[in-house]
Amino acid sequence: MKMSEGVEWALHCCLSLSWVDAGEAVTATKLAAFYDLPAAYLNKQLQALVRAGIVSSAPGPRGGFQLARGLEEITLMDVVSAIEGPRSAFRCTDIRHRGPGGAFIAASETSAGGSRIPCAIAQAMRAAELGWRKHLAAQTIADIKTVIEDRSPNSGDDIRHWLTARSS
Amino acid sequence: MKMSEGVEWALHCCLSLSWVDAGEAVTATKLAAFYDLPAAYLNKQLQALVRAGIVSSAPGPRGGFQLARGLEEITLMDVVSAIEGPRSAFRCTDIRHRGPGGAFIAASETSAGGSRIPCAIAQAMRAAELGWRKHLAAQTIADIKTVIEDRSPNSGDDIRHWLTARSS
Repeated sequence: MKMSEGVEWALHCCLSLSWVDAGEAVTATKLAAFYDLPAAYLNKQLQALVRAGIVSSAPGPRGGFQLARGLEEITLMDVVSAIEGPRSAFRCTDIRHRGPGGAFIAASETSAGGSRIPCAIAQAMRAAELGWRKHLAAQTIADIKTVIEDRSPNSGDDIRHWLTARSS
Repeated sequence: MKMSEGVEWALHCCLSLSWVDAGEAVTATKLAAFYDLPAAYLNKQLQALVRAGIVSSAPGPRGGFQLARGLEEITLMDVVSAIEGPRSAFRCTDIRHRGPGGAFIAASETSAGGSRIPCAIAQAMRAAELGWRKHLAAQTIADIKTVIEDRSPNSGDDIRHWLTARSS
């Protein structure tokens, strides 16, 4: 099981855009050059962030991408969902209801008055994954930015200058 | 991001094998028939469980698979790792060190006395995933079995009879 590398790219792009002044847009080409990434594929990830309402895009010669909402309103979960989609990693295909096992469960469900007996495996797997999602949803890009600015006080200025320079 | 369906299959197979008497082996063909799954592909998942020391396999006409250790010693994490491998879902490719951004970080690291500045994004993503793994590691197949036997008291007997019947 592997998360798309687009998640790492999207998280770093959100952070980079946060250092750019409000109203200033950055192109996918420029963001891609900053991280030495393929521009067309990075653009695809940025479009996914646009669809999720995390980033907005403006057309034209001074167009590009900018954050669509405050950093404290963008959680790690928002970005992961935008890139990976909303579905859970564990997908129950209900194999217990297939084959002869299905007849045994049907008999148990009839004995229990016809109510559906939930699958204990799917429930346990989902509970574990929910804990992960809650952890991701409890952290915002603003939290990450605070850590970075504490560790590398000049990095924001450096990134802003590079991304907003007119020639490069 | 999607977990292989082999995880669901492997978890159900561990449970099914737990209802079979000690010393009695069940073939991949029989387990596949019970859940209406493709036998060759299920066999591949069972072999992964063998490599992880969760299940053992015996050759010969009365051979097959059986649990290699107690249910209370098989966690959900053990099974997920056996099927999906040990690597984390989020894989940091360290894009912050690529391109011009890499030079800014190098400068910050030099200012900080040469020590490596960890990536706050990778740290946050790993911390969230660690929570998930701990949750999976805290639950055993024995816990799941208790829930199932409480909900469907006869299911264990039904499954044992079907899996160990000589003809079918």
